[in-house]
Amino acid sequence: MKDSDTNMKYLFEPRGIAVVGASKSPGKIGHTVVKNIVCGGFRGNIYPVNPKGGEMLGLRVYEHLEAIDGRVDVAMIVVPAEVAFEAIQECAHKDVKFAVIISSGFSEVGNVAEELKIARFAREHGIRIVGPNVFGIYSAVSSLNATFGPADVKSGNVAIITQSGAIGIAMIGKTKVEGIGLSAMISVGNKSDVNEMDLLDYLTFQDDAKVILMYLEGVKSGERLVGVLKRATRKKPVIVIKSGRSSRGAQAAASHTGSLAGEDRVFDDVARQCGVIRAESIQEALNWCRFLADVPPPTGEDCVIITNGGGIGVLTADACEKYGVNLSDEVADLKRTFEDVMPSFGSAKNPIDLTGGASPDDYDRALVTALENENIDSVACLGCQTAAFDAQRFEQIAEERYAQFKPVKPIVFSLFGGEEVERSILGLKAKGIPVFPDVYEMTAFLGALYRDYRNKISSETEPAKAEIDVAAIKCAISRARADQRHFLLAREAQEVMRAANIAIPESRVAHSPEDAVRYAEEIGYPIVMKVISKDIIHKSDAGAVALDLVNKQEILDAYEAIMRNSRSYKSDAVIDGIQVDEMIQGGVETIIGARRDNSFGPTVMFGLGGIYVEVLKDIAFRAFPLSREETLNMIGQINSYPLLLGVRGDARKDIDEVADTIIKVGWILQNCAEISDIEVNPLVVYDHGDGVKAVDVRILLSESQEA
Amino acid sequence: MKDSDTNMKYLFEPRGIAVVGASKSPGKIGHTVVKNIVCGGFRGNIYPVNPKGGEMLGLRVYEHLEAIDGRVDVAMIVVPAEVAFEAIQECAHKDVKFAVIISSGFSEVGNVAEELKIARFAREHGIRIVGPNVFGIYSAVSSLNATFGPADVKSGNVAIITQSGAIGIAMIGKTKVEGIGLSAMISVGNKSDVNEMDLLDYLTFQDDAKVILMYLEGVKSGERLVGVLKRATRKKPVIVIKSGRSSRGAQAAASHTGSLAGEDRVFDDVARQCGVIRAESIQEALNWCRFLADVPPPTGEDCVIITNGGGIGVLTADACEKYGVNLSDEVADLKRTFEDVMPSFGSAKNPIDLTGGASPDDYDRALVTALENENIDSVACLGCQTAAFDAQRFEQIAEERYAQFKPVKPIVFSLFGGEEVERSILGLKAKGIPVFPDVYEMTAFLGALYRDYRNKISSETEPAKAEIDVAAIKCAISRARADQRHFLLAREAQEVMRAANIAIPESRVAHSPEDAVRYAEEIGYPIVMKVISKDIIHKSDAGAVALDLVNKQEILDAYEAIMRNSRSYKSDAVIDGIQVDEMIQGGVETIIGARRDNSFGPTVMFGLGGIYVEVLKDIAFRAFPLSREETLNMIGQINSYPLLLGVRGDARKDIDEVADTIIKVGWILQNCAEISDIEVNPLVVYDHGDGVKAVDVRILLSESQEA
Repeated sequence: MKDSDTNMKYLFEPRGIAVVGASKSPGKIGHTVVKNIVCGGFRGNIYPVNPKGGEMLGLRVYEHLEAIDGRVDVAMIVVPAEVAFEAIQECAHKDVKFAVIISSGFSEVGNVAEELKIARFAREHGIRIVGPNVFGIYSAVSSLNATFGPADVKSGNVAIITQSGAIGIAMIGKTKVEGIGLSAMISVGNKSDVNEMDLLDYLTFQDDAKVILMYLEGVKSGERLVGVLKRATRKKPVIVIKSGRSSRGAQAAASHTGSLAGEDRVFDDVARQCGVIRAESIQEALNWCRFLADVPPPTGEDCVIITNGGGIGVLTADACEKYGVNLSDEVADLKRTFEDVMPSFGSAKNPIDLTGGASPDDYDRALVTALENENIDSVACLGCQTAAFDAQRFEQIAEERYAQFKPVKPIVFSLFGGEEVERSILGLKAKGIPVFPDVYEMTAFLGALYRDYRNKISSETEPAKAEIDVAAIKCAISRARADQRHFLLAREAQEVMRAANIAIPESRVAHSPEDAVRYAEEIGYPIVMKVISKDIIHKSDAGAVALDLVNKQEILDAYEAIMRNSRSYKSDAVIDGIQVDEMIQGGVETIIGARRDNSFGPTVMFGLGGIYVEVLKDIAFRAFPLSREETLNMIGQINSYPLLLGVRGDARKDIDEVADTIIKVGWILQNCAEISDIEVNPLVVYDHGDGVKAVDVRILLSESQEA
Repeated sequence: MKDSDTNMKYLFEPRGIAVVGASKSPGKIGHTVVKNIVCGGFRGNIYPVNPKGGEMLGLRVYEHLEAIDGRVDVAMIVVPAEVAFEAIQECAHKDVKFAVIISSGFSEVGNVAEELKIARFAREHGIRIVGPNVFGIYSAVSSLNATFGPADVKSGNVAIITQSGAIGIAMIGKTKVEGIGLSAMISVGNKSDVNEMDLLDYLTFQDDAKVILMYLEGVKSGERLVGVLKRATRKKPVIVIKSGRSSRGAQAAASHTGSLAGEDRVFDDVARQCGVIRAESIQEALNWCRFLADVPPPTGEDCVIITNGGGIGVLTADACEKYGVNLSDEVADLKRTFEDVMPSFGSAKNPIDLTGGASPDDYDRALVTALENENIDSVACLGCQTAAFDAQRFEQIAEERYAQFKPVKPIVFSLFGGEEVERSILGLKAKGIPVFPDVYEMTAFLGALYRDYRNKISSETEPAKAEIDVAAIKCAISRARADQRHFLLAREAQEVMRAANIAIPESRVAHSPEDAVRYAEEIGYPIVMKVISKDIIHKSDAGAVALDLVNKQEILDAYEAIMRNSRSYKSDAVIDGIQVDEMIQGGVETIIGARRDNSFGPTVMFGLGGIYVEVLKDIAFRAFPLSREETLNMIGQINSYPLLLGVRGDARKDIDEVADTIIKVGWILQNCAEISDIEVNPLVVYDHGDGVKAVDVRILLSESQEA
């Protein structure tokens, strides 16, 4: 880890950079890259490389890499795909640390073999590859603009990692226009070696990056992703735009990147679990990036809205509910706090309505009052252009109070009106003060700030453990393998449940009426009985099943009836005994699933059974392992959760046991690499204290013998 | 109707306007209003009125209204609340048609009595009141800016009606900054007389208003609202921002306007039913207003995305799913259409990816191809700033093709990049071409365009009828009234169901075992029996209920057992007989509700029973009456609808009978003004063809004897 960190530093802070395929013809990529490096004021050495040699932009052009005297940490490769491999071979001779392959024409157009060949060679020779099919890299710390994008990049503290080159290049321009400064910008292209996780992990510990923005389509990092994301979000806000949210978008992403995006529901839940702030659109992400680095965290959950317009106050309250911002409801305290600063007919309920006649001084007093009150943790200040509203004066007050209280708590602003108001918005924005033209945008930002805050204050919990008898499970698996099966039989799956100490319905095999009675009494009534015979498939049709048996006599009668009916149904049937089972009744049906996700590795799923899953898709996902707290949080996320808490006079269900079972199922998957999928459906959940029962369990094995 | 239309015209096109309370002191509202009227270039006569007389802004100031010679169609009232009544009395003498009371200090601060007094007097004297507590009126058709807002209003074709004065004034400035032209802008304030419906109805038939935008908090127009909205949305797009979406926002709205906002779910469903395009935020509404008047409607549902960046293509596909825009999926046709205009490695799946190397000419060819193809109904064209992208040239092409194909089908654009791109966005915007900096904003607009299109092409359906025996219902109600009850007993509610021909479980009262057997056989097994006795409240505890009786012998045994148990439970109990009921089993439980909504008048509700309603809030609302098509649409709206279609091998349920029952329940409410609430819960729905049963019905009566 440490080692690769050090290495990655030279990608962002190379001492020398070569451009293999440098061109003297303006307009060519091989020219633009060199020009951008030069114009960007790169602090290290610049080595254009082209067999023709000569000079360009005042620099010597080297005929080949080996002709360079100094160290080359990074080589930008802009030669055609056909000769890229040769260039990488040259890099190996020159001990280049990173080759950034801008050239396209590889796996993105089906030329997978060439890409693999390069990647393999590079790995063998200790070269890390970025790309191919990238637009290059921008790194503020070394004033490096090694891209073929715009020459002019605004430096700052937002680091951007993008899976789309076009979006990356356009973002360089867009961030400049919007006044957002970048600390780094890099695209991952075809990810033949370095991927977004490597970059994220480096940027997590790179001080200039105060906020990280990622544009993702598909992620294929397996379980590493979860750890990297969790570590990153503890240190700084990580905003992710992931396209392919919709099924139509996922299809489009698949045809665009050639890799399936995976289930967006899983991504959404797990990203949230990791503390990621997910933005829907690029605009939203940029709105958040702009201020997140600078705005102080709230001191707690209670936000107060100050407004001079009731209408925009109400709209903001709506937006707060949408974006998970909690409005302070301490009416008495609010009244006391604001009574001196507002007119008698204004509202001292939150939103605090100073009314349309509010002057800048009224605002000032209300702001100071709110910011000094330690029961108020964040402030949203709204201004509607009215006859009494002086935008210029408001701007001054906002600036002054923002600066004064910045060490203490956040204030965000939204201003709505004409030209003067627009000017104030631009003025405040330019000073890095969070101001938005629309209250929904403002509140979305506040919501992002709160998500980051809640993630950072949440305690880092240890994964919950569970004892699993792995040997017993391997035994069941080996029987399936011996049988050439990729799934476990019901009985084998039950063995797996037992090995994890998960309760299953009791079951015995009786060979005599006396056996049956004894087992029934051990298990407890009511009982279900059925014949065990390979020769009788449709047991109910044969009259070889008996339900709801409640006493000894019924057991004896049923035994006799099942034997008689079985024989009359098929006289030569081989009967291996009669199964005596606990009858499952009552309880709430739930589902627990566990499988290896392409993006996140082991993940668990929970939902209520039957139509809740199938029709309403009311399910929650988490990456595994999980702490107990995270597990309970996952259970509480589903919409039908009140059914577990008990509605309409029903008792609370055994939620603790559900959590335990999720953890156990997760550990089965985690500890048994050969298992690819587990589904407990239904897991019947009884009243609190009465536990759960895994009634039906399906377990699939991975295709390969040993994973 | 016709008459009030004509009248309303003089509010927007007065021949003469007086300002009662005109002031010579700049900064005072009485000054600003006169100044704005003068500076706005009003085409009629302007009469400042102030007891001091004299002259202002080159106009004679009249000492009182009666001193004016010419017609005064509108009087702006800006005197203090205490003397407003006198001013209205003067208006009566002068035959003023409209008094617009800008003055505040009425019901909004609790001074309800004064407001009512003025409203009553005005009504008696044929004066219509706008306000009090409004900012005035802007009307482009007569160049009238009778507001105390900004002097400079951009004229155009968007009419705005607002319930918030502050938002209205700020919008005047905001629309100017954004380059959106207004045909009218008016606030309704306290709505002592003229309300948003009166204004909407007028603007529906006013040609300059091509798009109507309404900002609403609470609406109290009862059923009139539905008719006015439906009529308006047939003629032109009606965009509504309604605050108080969230429970917290609704509280804030209540404390702001003093009127409860009502259930937002009802508003949302009914507004959609009426063809309203609901915007969440002001920004979103303005984005839509700007272009909706001008962009042609799509020719059908199939949209094609053309892009030079895969990433923004995928994001747009996501946004299309979110905003209900259907992407064409005719892959073969798309391939044929675009194969000549794109590189071999681009994607001819929708989104059509021209790839990052696309030149303006490539775009041009792709655009023309798409626009000429009659299988493509609308086009979303995206541009990412790449090395090959020339924003200026793109702008020219976009302008040319937009103009060429404007009579045929819509094209919308989204451009993403740096300064040049920003310039092109501003350039296209200024020409009225729909272009957006973010693909989500673009797609939200396209979604609004499609919602308007779908509403306009939907056939105007006749309300479905149902025969209701109103006399029988009145009879049941009168019995409840005689009993001083505001609710019907179960038996009375059943009578109401019968009067509407809604199936209820069969039930008879037996007085002998023979009766019981006969009734059971008439009804059909299985049967439920229970004692009828006022003296036995807890019938199950008394052993006086028998379930699931399946033959004659069980009926006879049960009869005997119930009589015996009842007597031994309470020896002196008066037994009125034994109820013989159909046993309800199987089927899906649903709920139908009907009540009078404050905003919309009679509304009906439908959802699946039990936890679907209580926990998941999976319900749909509609204003009544409803066509059959609208009813089926309502049923199909709930998330759990697949349960009615039949999932997991279940048969399809009798959805037709559900629709019929919703219509019948609606007509009961509609025809019986004394009924305030009906809830059928559960309505059990059987398999298709097997009908429904209203198992439990609660009916509430309005407090007043005769509604």
